[in-house]
Amino acid sequence: MTAQTRIPLAIAGIGKIARDQHIPSVAGGEDFDLKAAVSRHGKVEGIENFEDFDAFLAKRPDIRAVSLCTPPEVRFDMAKKAIAAGHDVLMEKPPATTLGEAEALADLAREAGVTLFATWHSRFALGVEPARAWLADKAIRSIEIVWKEDVRRWHPGQAWIWEPGGFGVFDPGINALSILTAIVPGRIRVEKANLSFPANRKQPIAADISMRTASGAPISAAFDWRQEGRQTWDITVETDAGTLRLSKGGAELFIDGVEKTAGPDREYAGIYERFAALIRARESDVDYQPLRLVADAFLCGERREVAAFED
Amino acid sequence: MTAQTRIPLAIAGIGKIARDQHIPSVAGGEDFDLKAAVSRHGKVEGIENFEDFDAFLAKRPDIRAVSLCTPPEVRFDMAKKAIAAGHDVLMEKPPATTLGEAEALADLAREAGVTLFATWHSRFALGVEPARAWLADKAIRSIEIVWKEDVRRWHPGQAWIWEPGGFGVFDPGINALSILTAIVPGRIRVEKANLSFPANRKQPIAADISMRTASGAPISAAFDWRQEGRQTWDITVETDAGTLRLSKGGAELFIDGVEKTAGPDREYAGIYERFAALIRARESDVDYQPLRLVADAFLCGERREVAAFED
Repeated sequence: MTAQTRIPLAIAGIGKIARDQHIPSVAGGEDFDLKAAVSRHGKVEGIENFEDFDAFLAKRPDIRAVSLCTPPEVRFDMAKKAIAAGHDVLMEKPPATTLGEAEALADLAREAGVTLFATWHSRFALGVEPARAWLADKAIRSIEIVWKEDVRRWHPGQAWIWEPGGFGVFDPGINALSILTAIVPGRIRVEKANLSFPANRKQPIAADISMRTASGAPISAAFDWRQEGRQTWDITVETDAGTLRLSKGGAELFIDGVEKTAGPDREYAGIYERFAALIRARESDVDYQPLRLVADAFLCGERREVAAFED
Repeated sequence: MTAQTRIPLAIAGIGKIARDQHIPSVAGGEDFDLKAAVSRHGKVEGIENFEDFDAFLAKRPDIRAVSLCTPPEVRFDMAKKAIAAGHDVLMEKPPATTLGEAEALADLAREAGVTLFATWHSRFALGVEPARAWLADKAIRSIEIVWKEDVRRWHPGQAWIWEPGGFGVFDPGINALSILTAIVPGRIRVEKANLSFPANRKQPIAADISMRTASGAPISAAFDWRQEGRQTWDITVETDAGTLRLSKGGAELFIDGVEKTAGPDREYAGIYERFAALIRARESDVDYQPLRLVADAFLCGERREVAAFED
């Protein structure tokens, strides 16, 4: 595709994830041309910068695709306005702070005939698609998810993760749930959840969740944000034909201990290729199962208070 | 309809709601013939009684319709088994302890080709359908819900309401939400929620919720289980053409202060007429919007601790 046929794109929310992933992936790909940035604080050199989303919409109607990388609590209004303006919209995960917001956006995009892509970046990790394909004809016996990381290292200064809509440890945990729902057929349900809230925080710092696959196999998930030293993002699936393990957040796939994938990370490159394909096909991709699992964990979960947490 | 063509029915869970409402409504209607009861503790005179749901399914395959009036935490397994046996299933509210369970049951009923009816009894209150019809061509400006009752009076000894899956004050509150979602067009979303948990309880005793209609009108809901004296179950809707008020849980409808409905309560009579109509049409009625609003309130809600509550 030549530069002339690239899709003009704006990115809203120039923070850590936009700089680390979105901007380099757009620059490295062939589908989009980054034309504008919208952010109260961040700026991107060499393109037009806006502080206000309404001003951007008014001044640059030629930019038909918008990537929303802001924290989720301000994303809903932006998505609504962008859809109303007839733009195609990509949303960072999680897509919204409630299922109601998420479903409302899907309604609006359908009515407006635009593309809405609720992304789950972990689904684009190298091992995920081969894991799904391998599991498709196996009988799953049990699944164990261990997702333990150091919040100080991965979310420095991000106060919103502790606020309502920030989801606490479910912010990384929903990545595991997005992989789980991508590789396991059928609807997964939460049976039980224990949520650990620091005495001084509004969101959980750890969670233990018991789930079940549609065919009845048990799933355990341990999410913890207090993990120093080695960081763990593993999903292990026991089947009638051996053990599948996804490691490093889905980047590495092992079958019975033998590595099956290797290569550089392409999560966000894959996201933008998919966004371009959806726009060309005039389709949307809005799968809210990971968010529904988080909502159900909060709904049926038991809360306990744990030691206060200071950044 | 003569006695010969009545649909054989079993009721599972012979507690307060079954005795107060289901059994009299079935007896007073012309569609069903109560043939069996399934309950660990309760018995119904003059019909076959089972303590075990599996034993009932094995012995009475002729009873094709089953009403599930047990607490929600045991309802999922019963519903699954009844659907698998090819029975038509009615579920008391709330239909499940999680959205995942509720959606899984809808999947199973669709695959099995049986009728699943997730009831919301308040939707059958006298004022609700006329309220929906009156609002259909009005512009809604704001909605206020006040749902305040004495838990000691309405839930004596029902320990499950304080357990995970019991939903606390959302057990009555979901009735208000079921009316709200029936009379207001479009998808309603939770914007903010404050949940008050007694120090010694796992579920909220009070909740304040801010919501918004699809067209942007604000909705406030105040749920409280500590209301002694006068009990209040009111929904007031301000529109461009006057004020609508549903009182007494939807039983009474007023437009600009003038009463528009009167008559005896027929909530559960209406439920069984609808169940019969669904069975004859081979259709299901599973609307989980009220449960989704509760899940979203837990998901985005701020929790505060209030005084311990003793029965």
